[in-house]
Amino acid sequence: MATLGHGVRIAILGASGYTGVELLRLLAHHPSGEIRALTADRQAGKSIAKVFPHLARRNLPDLVAIGEVDWSDIDLVFCCLPHGTTQEVVASLPAHLRVCDLSADFRLDPATYETWYGHAHRAPHLQTEAVYGLTEVARAAVANARLVAVPGCYPTCAQLPLIPLLKAGIIDADDIVIDAKSGVTGAGRGLKETSLFAEVSEGICAYGVANHRHMPEIEQGLSAAAGKPVTVTFTPHLMPMNRGILSTIYVRMINGAGLADLRRTLEHSYADEPFVRVLKEGSYPATQHVRGSNLCLIGLGADRRPGRAILVAAIDNLVKGASGQAVQDMNVMLGLPETSGLAQEPLFP
Amino acid sequence: MATLGHGVRIAILGASGYTGVELLRLLAHHPSGEIRALTADRQAGKSIAKVFPHLARRNLPDLVAIGEVDWSDIDLVFCCLPHGTTQEVVASLPAHLRVCDLSADFRLDPATYETWYGHAHRAPHLQTEAVYGLTEVARAAVANARLVAVPGCYPTCAQLPLIPLLKAGIIDADDIVIDAKSGVTGAGRGLKETSLFAEVSEGICAYGVANHRHMPEIEQGLSAAAGKPVTVTFTPHLMPMNRGILSTIYVRMINGAGLADLRRTLEHSYADEPFVRVLKEGSYPATQHVRGSNLCLIGLGADRRPGRAILVAAIDNLVKGASGQAVQDMNVMLGLPETSGLAQEPLFP
Amino acid sequence: MATLGHGVRIAILGASGYTGVELLRLLAHHPSGEIRALTADRQAGKSIAKVFPHLARRNLPDLVAIGEVDWSDIDLVFCCLPHGTTQEVVASLPAHLRVCDLSADFRLDPATYETWYGHAHRAPHLQTEAVYGLTEVARAAVANARLVAVPGCYPTCAQLPLIPLLKAGIIDADDIVIDAKSGVTGAGRGLKETSLFAEVSEGICAYGVANHRHMPEIEQGLSAAAGKPVTVTFTPHLMPMNRGILSTIYVRMINGAGLADLRRTLEHSYADEPFVRVLKEGSYPATQHVRGSNLCLIGLGADRRPGRAILVAAIDNLVKGASGQAVQDMNVMLGLPETSGLAQEPLFP
Amino acid sequence: MATLGHGVRIAILGASGYTGVELLRLLAHHPSGEIRALTADRQAGKSIAKVFPHLARRNLPDLVAIGEVDWSDIDLVFCCLPHGTTQEVVASLPAHLRVCDLSADFRLDPATYETWYGHAHRAPHLQTEAVYGLTEVARAAVANARLVAVPGCYPTCAQLPLIPLLKAGIIDADDIVIDAKSGVTGAGRGLKETSLFAEVSEGICAYGVANHRHMPEIEQGLSAAAGKPVTVTFTPHLMPMNRGILSTIYVRMINGAGLADLRRTLEHSYADEPFVRVLKEGSYPATQHVRGSNLCLIGLGADRRPGRAILVAAIDNLVKGASGQAVQDMNVMLGLPETSGLAQEPLFP
Repeated sequence: MATLGHGVRIAILGASGYTGVELLRLLAHHPSGEIRALTADRQAGKSIAKVFPHLARRNLPDLVAIGEVDWSDIDLVFCCLPHGTTQEVVASLPAHLRVCDLSADFRLDPATYETWYGHAHRAPHLQTEAVYGLTEVARAAVANARLVAVPGCYPTCAQLPLIPLLKAGIIDADDIVIDAKSGVTGAGRGLKETSLFAEVSEGICAYGVANHRHMPEIEQGLSAAAGKPVTVTFTPHLMPMNRGILSTIYVRMINGAGLADLRRTLEHSYADEPFVRVLKEGSYPATQHVRGSNLCLIGLGADRRPGRAILVAAIDNLVKGASGQAVQDMNVMLGLPETSGLAQEPLFP
Repeated sequence: MATLGHGVRIAILGASGYTGVELLRLLAHHPSGEIRALTADRQAGKSIAKVFPHLARRNLPDLVAIGEVDWSDIDLVFCCLPHGTTQEVVASLPAHLRVCDLSADFRLDPATYETWYGHAHRAPHLQTEAVYGLTEVARAAVANARLVAVPGCYPTCAQLPLIPLLKAGIIDADDIVIDAKSGVTGAGRGLKETSLFAEVSEGICAYGVANHRHMPEIEQGLSAAAGKPVTVTFTPHLMPMNRGILSTIYVRMINGAGLADLRRTLEHSYADEPFVRVLKEGSYPATQHVRGSNLCLIGLGADRRPGRAILVAAIDNLVKGASGQAVQDMNVMLGLPETSGLAQEPLFP
Repeated sequence: MATLGHGVRIAILGASGYTGVELLRLLAHHPSGEIRALTADRQAGKSIAKVFPHLARRNLPDLVAIGEVDWSDIDLVFCCLPHGTTQEVVASLPAHLRVCDLSADFRLDPATYETWYGHAHRAPHLQTEAVYGLTEVARAAVANARLVAVPGCYPTCAQLPLIPLLKAGIIDADDIVIDAKSGVTGAGRGLKETSLFAEVSEGICAYGVANHRHMPEIEQGLSAAAGKPVTVTFTPHLMPMNRGILSTIYVRMINGAGLADLRRTLEHSYADEPFVRVLKEGSYPATQHVRGSNLCLIGLGADRRPGRAILVAAIDNLVKGASGQAVQDMNVMLGLPETSGLAQEPLFP
Repeated sequence: MATLGHGVRIAILGASGYTGVELLRLLAHHPSGEIRALTADRQAGKSIAKVFPHLARRNLPDLVAIGEVDWSDIDLVFCCLPHGTTQEVVASLPAHLRVCDLSADFRLDPATYETWYGHAHRAPHLQTEAVYGLTEVARAAVANARLVAVPGCYPTCAQLPLIPLLKAGIIDADDIVIDAKSGVTGAGRGLKETSLFAEVSEGICAYGVANHRHMPEIEQGLSAAAGKPVTVTFTPHLMPMNRGILSTIYVRMINGAGLADLRRTLEHSYADEPFVRVLKEGSYPATQHVRGSNLCLIGLGADRRPGRAILVAAIDNLVKGASGQAVQDMNVMLGLPETSGLAQEPLFP
């Protein structure tokens, strides 16, 4: 789909949360994006400076209620609304709009959605239309999409290292353990006791053991890659950092493959990718090395248990795990250079 | 072995590090312990207040060089010296002394030691004499020991949940994945770039992937429990907290066992233990819940992959993972109440 | 007032917050305290294990609504309720109960209260009866009190270093600057955006500049010490730590006094105090050195500006700044040893 | 001084520390800068990927010893070497090079240097030549400089709010208290016990009370602004965050000035500055709002003590307090747009 004649006129729905503000940061230096509308129902009427003092200088529109947006002035919508309400909002938008949705509402197929969320989807026609926007895997489909479901943070950090290996048939699809550690922004800006500083700092806990809602999303992508239904072991953990996900992944090699085959497959898959990088032998990523960037770093090595390997992948959950991948998808949808607005170096230390 | 007539006269070798100061904290309220000597070669001559201002009020002896200690005045030594040098120091101590060694020097059998450390042990007779002090597992042997090798932090947090299950023959000894997350004090007080605040905060990384030196220690204990050689998958991670280890452990159930069997086995094993607790169904521990205490909390649940289970264990690496277990071992060695000096509640928040 | 014949039967109102749980930690090892009732209106019916998993092992009563408490079984109440509602609750309690109130409701004189809170006090007779429980300063009055207003965290950390100097007439009461830095638990366990991990971590901000409600409380105590109305400059800051307050205090010396006089005055005032300690010349406290303890550490030195001095004081806001001082007050009220339940060493690191 | 014909060919001396890596981050997107040489004596021979894995992708030269640099290929040097050794290194550089020095070596006049550092300066002719590069204050001089002494982090955050007020004669130069709080990167990447995670996290302490070496630097700048010698009260604090300085500044207004005059003076002084911003009434900055950016935010309000005001300023110590200001100075020296390479939005959260 070709670039628009003018710059891309953008609306961000739900701009007062962490993925919203991250879009504002990334789009600040996007050469083709113009932010025309920002919504935040409970904060409607406020300036962005009230909600995010660090953006006071930017010449940004005030927050409005979603009903106040003049859609004729908008080309593309980033939807940063809570899971569940998003499907109705997106269904109500004019059809000329392209949409990058950061919620979980359009990521699953209808049956899986109903199983995990306990009710039928309220916009099933859109659910079918939506393209799952794991850019490196679905670039062509994203390029032709009107509605993109931006992948979740855990699913991004699990699928990027695993999909090439499953496609190549060199790891056992029935023996995958994903142990993931996430920073606190993954839980959003909502007021929850479990997100309080004094509850999170100086500790770590597992949560959603064996039933986190990102699990079916991971399995859907891995199943497509493996060509058969895949069930994974997946345990997310909450730890004291703002940004970052580290996935430590345990696999069994099959069909005679060894570590060198895994390495070669991943390096080959991502050789031309601007945002995915396979580290040298003996190196494993830290989330500090991706903070603020759209990078996904992957390290891998042999396990001591014969025939097994360990993969470690790191992303910034707010960038490659949310807003950065959303911008990347937008760039692909509109035929813009894929790295536009995403050239930030990691912030270390 | 019966209690000594007088209070236990204690020396702490290497008192200026984190396990040393933790012993000082715990022993402060031990009803039978008297601290008679503190050594720290590079800081010899300093008052404890210089090295640990928060202890200025305590009536503690000044730091001295190890050669200055009058051993005739000492009953028991806590040895908090670096790995490698410890074996020679312990070998040089008078034979009347009981020793709780917190280093790794006496934990492994001679062959394994040589394999992992690349040189023959320098005190093999003591290596044979030493009792591995995982108190709940080896209480009787500890009670009769002169030299106890206090287990490492990762090994403690891995073995306590796994040993009863392996002994019962209800999990597959050949399919164990241990994903462990540790606070920074596990690396000691030494000056390393990787321990700097600005390198650690706001992130997480894996290290020692498939070759951490706590791995053979874990395998030694699990092998004894399983009655056959066990090799595990083990990945330690470094994360921004002072204290705590969380082990997320992935197992396959065998011999017809289900989750209820695992739960019953663990609950039964630890029913009378003051420091190990199995959480109710659906509950998983956080390291915040053990901070400053000698507790080990264990949660478990069924995996979505059939026939598999997930265990989560938490300890404070400086307490149950080091100095607390050392005190517990001392109590057992001397016939003192096992909880003496260890009654601290967790510090939360 | 003499010790009760039996152990002290204690109720904690508002036990599900941070000061409530801190009381549970401290009272765990109090030789004379027995916890008989715990209230938490919104969590009534839950076990303490549900709200604080780390206390699951303790044999503690379930949480109940305040109306369900059998007061005839209670000797003393710790009131950890929000400011504003406390005054009515305390007024409704049977008169035989001794009360240690941790809210701000009974700390100020009626006129000041009305000025800062914008409404008349709803229990003015109790306001007059209440004794301000800065233990070291008001020990005799606390010993005879039925109702003690436990001082706020900032006021404790400001008054302890300043009161002896003002009483001695050696610092200018009209030129005091108090720059205070607090951990996040000072804001309680309530759900506020400003208490979220992602808002607090990796930064610091000033708040309540020149109008924080602890300001009149500080001024009330300093005015009494100075014998004339005192207005101070006071700026609180919120920073990423769970516990701790550090007050950096800037003063001008008068009446010919020099730094040695300040030091001598403070050392003399606190020579026999178990919880207040003046550090040696050249030493200044860190909050890490008081974490989990009831200590207040004070360091002082000469400013480069002639005739001026700098004082630095540190407390744990949940202990000496709240629950610890409450227990200390209880001990004094009941004629118990003042350090009962408060012998914990600081937890460092 | 006009722009060079080609891009600016840059060498960074001491590139393996935190200010070095921050220059690499900022210059990554500088339209005119080309990094030609990176030195790090102890790490010479290593690739930048070894020292900073997050920069592995960038096409950067390997680290070399300083003696290996071909100076004929360099236009401008950023010097990130330790205090003390820098003066000799800079003196040894070819005269055609422009230099931005981030150490303290060229910031003070000879007499003050000798007083605070205890020895005569080893390159006094350069000390005289050097321009103190507080860009907003010394823009014209910087534009003509060959050697710029980039200001320290604390001095930047203290001088920017105070200099306009002193120049205007509306605050008392003899009654200034600066209470500053800094993140840990201010101490550099060197191995010091006080920089270890376990020593820094969960606490705060004052250090260098009344004798920190940034004090004469602050006083030098304020004295120039006031037109008379100024001595300030200055207390730095170390707190658990990577980046950021917050200065809380207490002043007395004179010559009939009120808060509105202070506000007007600051707003007028910085109206056209791209990096300094005066916040609206009632707003105070947080360091989170400047993280990763070259901004200095200033808030101010009336104190309750009559005639007095409180200013709060925030910068990122690695950006406006070091490498960002160095780039800003470079831009001015070379006639480039002053914001080149410095357009990063703050990273929040």
